[in-house]
Amino acid sequence: MSTSPQESVRRQNLGALLRYVHVRGATSRAELTSRLGLNRSTIGALTADLATAGLIDEGVPQETGRAGRPSIVVRPRSSRVYGYALSLELDRVRAARIGLGGKVLDRRTAARPDGADPAPTIAALAALVADMQPAAGRPAGDAVFVGSGLAVSGSVRHHLGWTDETIEPPLTSALADRLGTARPPILGGVADLAALAEHTRGAAAGADNVIYLHGDAGISAGIIAGGRRITGYGGHGGEVGHMVVNPTGRLCGCGSRGCWETEIGERALLHLAGRTVPTSGAAVAAAVRAAAQGDPDARAAVVHAAEWLGFGVANLVNIFNPTIVVFGGTLQQLYLTAADHVRGRLLAMALPACRDHVVLHTPLLGDDAPLVGAAELAFERLLADPLDTTP
Amino acid sequence: MSTSPQESVRRQNLGALLRYVHVRGATSRAELTSRLGLNRSTIGALTADLATAGLIDEGVPQETGRAGRPSIVVRPRSSRVYGYALSLELDRVRAARIGLGGKVLDRRTAARPDGADPAPTIAALAALVADMQPAAGRPAGDAVFVGSGLAVSGSVRHHLGWTDETIEPPLTSALADRLGTARPPILGGVADLAALAEHTRGAAAGADNVIYLHGDAGISAGIIAGGRRITGYGGHGGEVGHMVVNPTGRLCGCGSRGCWETEIGERALLHLAGRTVPTSGAAVAAAVRAAAQGDPDARAAVVHAAEWLGFGVANLVNIFNPTIVVFGGTLQQLYLTAADHVRGRLLAMALPACRDHVVLHTPLLGDDAPLVGAAELAFERLLADPLDTTP
Repeated sequence: MSTSPQESVRRQNLGALLRYVHVRGATSRAELTSRLGLNRSTIGALTADLATAGLIDEGVPQETGRAGRPSIVVRPRSSRVYGYALSLELDRVRAARIGLGGKVLDRRTAARPDGADPAPTIAALAALVADMQPAAGRPAGDAVFVGSGLAVSGSVRHHLGWTDETIEPPLTSALADRLGTARPPILGGVADLAALAEHTRGAAAGADNVIYLHGDAGISAGIIAGGRRITGYGGHGGEVGHMVVNPTGRLCGCGSRGCWETEIGERALLHLAGRTVPTSGAAVAAAVRAAAQGDPDARAAVVHAAEWLGFGVANLVNIFNPTIVVFGGTLQQLYLTAADHVRGRLLAMALPACRDHVVLHTPLLGDDAPLVGAAELAFERLLADPLDTTP
Repeated sequence: MSTSPQESVRRQNLGALLRYVHVRGATSRAELTSRLGLNRSTIGALTADLATAGLIDEGVPQETGRAGRPSIVVRPRSSRVYGYALSLELDRVRAARIGLGGKVLDRRTAARPDGADPAPTIAALAALVADMQPAAGRPAGDAVFVGSGLAVSGSVRHHLGWTDETIEPPLTSALADRLGTARPPILGGVADLAALAEHTRGAAAGADNVIYLHGDAGISAGIIAGGRRITGYGGHGGEVGHMVVNPTGRLCGCGSRGCWETEIGERALLHLAGRTVPTSGAAVAAAVRAAAQGDPDARAAVVHAAEWLGFGVANLVNIFNPTIVVFGGTLQQLYLTAADHVRGRLLAMALPACRDHVVLHTPLLGDDAPLVGAAELAFERLLADPLDTTP
């Protein structure tokens, strides 16, 4: 072995400590000692190493009101240790600079250039990053760039026909130019990364079995099972929008009939509500608002979609036995407007053993969830081995 | 920490080595050296410890036909290191004594006593174990009993209303009496354990994303994702039989309409084939044989069930992006008799990205798969820390 057992354990401990403050925020040394099962002198040595590397700060906490010497508090250096998080959606591109601890330090949004040619979209994403970059190094000094992550909406793949190969090498080169790094952005699905974010620091924190459903032009799921992301062999798992729920239903773009998204997708909802406008998140939000205000056509469409939403959730709950289902993207408004219908259908259809501990929730991180999840991908390498300085 | 880093690494290495020969069978020291990334003297020390504990044998291999000194071969002591594997099914109970390396050393089967009272069934299972026990210690000496595992068919839960609490404490006490151990059998679902067995040493060996579908009175799934078993919060995941696929279909015992098992379950198949006999695995096998021999009613029923089997598999493939789907229990005969219908529906419905690498298969371990999987549960503690002698 190239690494001694002692050195290997030390690196694991450094990673565990940094991950703890990344996820939980400022933490006293006393709490770290007890939670990581290490003694005080070991914790002191580890925090010294991490502070020297510029990854954490240590300091005296605010007045605690308790007697005795206060325990020193360890904080992630959120404003200096950062990654870029990108989001590639059908109608917009987004980028954020996100600090250790999951803090959004800066953000940009732009419309996605029209058309199926990826080049202008990639240029638009790179431009957002370039626009944030001058501030990243100021004040000059010891900023640590950890890498970047990219959330890709399944709709981009389905509606534009883009593949990993369409997205990855061109974007890699464009961003490598901007960032002066050879490390490519790590790709993930939008629902998958939103699930990761909500699991790490949102509505699903502490839950090991999580289903995050994201609605935009399509429907996709991010799944955490046994505490880990489930993405399948090629990373293409979670295509729940193409779970067929109604074999006598409408034809789907994928060629099947009665896919879940033909009942609850944005297009289906607008069609049922009698809206003839082009499909967009804004149009769906307007229809759902109209439903809440009593528009009968919109209300009927929302109830229809909410019932079918509960129907599909029941199937997934029987398959995964989760403790939380989170509704993101445009499913968030749909769920909030007709939660009783979703819950009623779930209760009627799912097996009691599978649904007994399920709570239904909206994302605590809101629309930031995919970006925060993309940043988690970027931080993963640092957290696995904080002092590894390989470029 | 109570254990030094060196000792902790040594225990991990002992576990890794024992697991390797448990999964792969007899292995040369040279192969172990290269596969485990350890040097020769470390491998020699580890195998000496495992041999002293009675867990492996070492010896000179058969003539290899190659020049030079042959590498010593390490073999799991399959006939002396064993666990009990139990299977609780609707119409029968089974037990096997299974040796390290997954070798079935002995086995017993009995009809499950009629009725919903668990006591006679538990007594029947315990009697099977008692019947195998005298041979387990012979010739007298150093046999190592590692524990026991129990596969429970979901049908037992659904049709008899049994829960973990019905099964576990009474069976624990009955078996503790028989075995003179306080360690309870570890429970798992029949499909879940069959998936584990096929993943460890069967059709799905080497695959990290696996769906095993088991058919008996109901339909259940064992899922391996990212190389690990997916069982959900309460261990109740994989209830794919109650995924609703046909909302205008037949009423299911669970209260929903059009559950997958109302289209492909044993009862549905016999009904469609015009069989008025009581539902049983044997009756289904007879109907499927009749279909293969040209009986038109049976053939229509088999085609119907096979089409709906492919339909549900397409949904699961879109959700999990696996590389293999294994058809066990009575689904094995159904699949073999109408594979084209299953495959055709899968190809028509699943997204290309999700199904491109999927192969369809029957279990290499056949009906033993749940028993071999139950034994894997029993061996897990030994493999995690081979020299831990805590009772």
